[in-house]
Amino acid sequence: MLKAGILGGGQLGRMLLQAAANYPVQTYVMESDPNAPAAHLCHRFVKGDIRDFDAVYSFGKDLDALTIEIESVNEDALEALEQVGVKVYPSAAALRIIKNKIRQKEFYQQQGVPSPDFVVTADRSALRSQQSFLPAVHKIAEGGYDGRGVQLIRQATDIEKGFDAPSVLEKLVAINKEISQIVAVDRHGNTVLYPPVDMVFDPELNLLDYQISPAALPDSILRVVSDTALKVVKGLNSAGIFAVELFVDHNGAVFVNETAPRVHNSGHHTIEANFSSQFDMLWRILLGYPLGNPRPILPAAIVNLLGEPGHSGPAAYDGLEKVLQMEQAFVHLYGKAETRPGRKMGHVTLMHRETEELVRSAAGVKQQLKVISLE
Amino acid sequence: MLKAGILGGGQLGRMLLQAAANYPVQTYVMESDPNAPAAHLCHRFVKGDIRDFDAVYSFGKDLDALTIEIESVNEDALEALEQVGVKVYPSAAALRIIKNKIRQKEFYQQQGVPSPDFVVTADRSALRSQQSFLPAVHKIAEGGYDGRGVQLIRQATDIEKGFDAPSVLEKLVAINKEISQIVAVDRHGNTVLYPPVDMVFDPELNLLDYQISPAALPDSILRVVSDTALKVVKGLNSAGIFAVELFVDHNGAVFVNETAPRVHNSGHHTIEANFSSQFDMLWRILLGYPLGNPRPILPAAIVNLLGEPGHSGPAAYDGLEKVLQMEQAFVHLYGKAETRPGRKMGHVTLMHRETEELVRSAAGVKQQLKVISLE
Repeated sequence: MLKAGILGGGQLGRMLLQAAANYPVQTYVMESDPNAPAAHLCHRFVKGDIRDFDAVYSFGKDLDALTIEIESVNEDALEALEQVGVKVYPSAAALRIIKNKIRQKEFYQQQGVPSPDFVVTADRSALRSQQSFLPAVHKIAEGGYDGRGVQLIRQATDIEKGFDAPSVLEKLVAINKEISQIVAVDRHGNTVLYPPVDMVFDPELNLLDYQISPAALPDSILRVVSDTALKVVKGLNSAGIFAVELFVDHNGAVFVNETAPRVHNSGHHTIEANFSSQFDMLWRILLGYPLGNPRPILPAAIVNLLGEPGHSGPAAYDGLEKVLQMEQAFVHLYGKAETRPGRKMGHVTLMHRETEELVRSAAGVKQQLKVISLE
Repeated sequence: MLKAGILGGGQLGRMLLQAAANYPVQTYVMESDPNAPAAHLCHRFVKGDIRDFDAVYSFGKDLDALTIEIESVNEDALEALEQVGVKVYPSAAALRIIKNKIRQKEFYQQQGVPSPDFVVTADRSALRSQQSFLPAVHKIAEGGYDGRGVQLIRQATDIEKGFDAPSVLEKLVAINKEISQIVAVDRHGNTVLYPPVDMVFDPELNLLDYQISPAALPDSILRVVSDTALKVVKGLNSAGIFAVELFVDHNGAVFVNETAPRVHNSGHHTIEANFSSQFDMLWRILLGYPLGNPRPILPAAIVNLLGEPGHSGPAAYDGLEKVLQMEQAFVHLYGKAETRPGRKMGHVTLMHRETEELVRSAAGVKQQLKVISLE
């Protein structure tokens, strides 16, 4: 039986391991928290620091295949593992491009992929000299995750909120839609694309409100979205699952925002709503099987369940009963013992033939289900 | 977080644990084989004999809820656990009725549920005195499982194949269809029914060929099937998932064959093809959540992958690549290291709007995918 490892043990690992149990594979997880969402679902759990060369190398060296569920892993160790024959998807080289926002932006430029204009700022004083570039978004080159490491700099008075570390400063695009395009690549370079996902943001709070797939955009724009995402992924030249996030502006122009070299929040609906989910697809890639069928069974929406503001401590799910009674809702709770404001605690997938019904039920889930702490 | 245990660690436990990871629950498994399909997917694995009172009692006493994935468990221990407040679904009383084929037949009789006529035979010599009752099926009262413990006795010369132990001798029914009706019961007695499943047998080999849902039967017969199954399950007076297997004869008369007080092979398609799968449904029942939606998303077929005759040893999956390329196939391999003739090694679910297409692809899977041993 093949042995496959995952670096990181969060909810993405958890859902990967749910899918792994459809295949004959011995599963390994390395993660520093033995109570992480994925820690109990593998054949062998190794407590360790995924940023440490020796830890990652020693975890991976006897495995057939290795993947990640978070970018902040030691990519030098991945490279060394590739050299001893471990199938590492995504490749160390692809991860290295993506992990550093400066390298990522330069990569888009080299590939001729449209992406918002940018300048590199070495520190905060370099940022001060870029006032004519505002309004813009400041993104720290390394270590940002889940909204951290990104700062909107509208005007000169915002500059002190910027990062005093190597960063990119990106021109603000007048966004009409944010789209995620998930692409799967097998070890032979074959690719399949999932239908694009419309990531709908709350205009007030700039928070992700819900995600809906397939995205409602003219075919001509959808084609540009898919072609652009495919160009990015082909340029990365690595097997794996890639989520390319794109902006569409009010003129229908398409820009790449950023790329994740792994299963992605915007693909969680594929568990129920597509023939081969993003998690199933990644196992096929890791195990050397043919790619699966990314086609949707029904249109779907995803609502993320985030820890309520002001609530920290043992998690409780207020309104869960009501959502469990919704006819077309699939509830996923990640089993995290503690909630914190904004922490990803679960998601709900909704499936329905009618987009309007999806939007209505997504609003219902958001209104009814709150992750709180009873303390 | 609630603690829930499963007695038995086979493929049913494996699929239960895949579904458990959608909920905040600490999972426990007791099973004698530490390499069983479900052993690695729980928070805590306990090696132990599920037929042993002390082992089961000590495993269950600190749990909130307990279920089974095989009938051969110590039901006295379950009863003792119920008395200390553990939610045991199915109940010890229901399991006691079902575990013993004589008690099960007497139960149908008492409930006025149609079931093939039968006599009890204490041993083989008692069987010899029942020649006028032939052709019939001899079923051992206790310990039969997965086809073992059932013997067709067509005529007097077959009697020596019968069991020299307490058994029931059931009149052979001229079967037109075999149907499985899965019923879910929550702790308040609320019930939901999945669409009936048509279990299609190979007329030559009397082997289960494939299963298809919803079953193609006139509505009037489907109503009798559902009403009969519901009557059985209500009579058992226990929460849980129950699979009632029924015969429909050529006149459309409906008879109960037998009942399983657990998730069942005939419900595996519900993982992908229904809004709430039988596994999801059982977690809702164990955790005290509302029942889910048993409605189908699309019609589905199940093909069981059994170890090929003549093959024993390390398992290999000949033709797997082809089946993984079928557009509407969902492959489930149970990760058993060794195959044996007839051993359940996996299943493939097919989903399609058209029944004809399901039958055609089920035949394709059966023809292409063989579980063999390379030794």
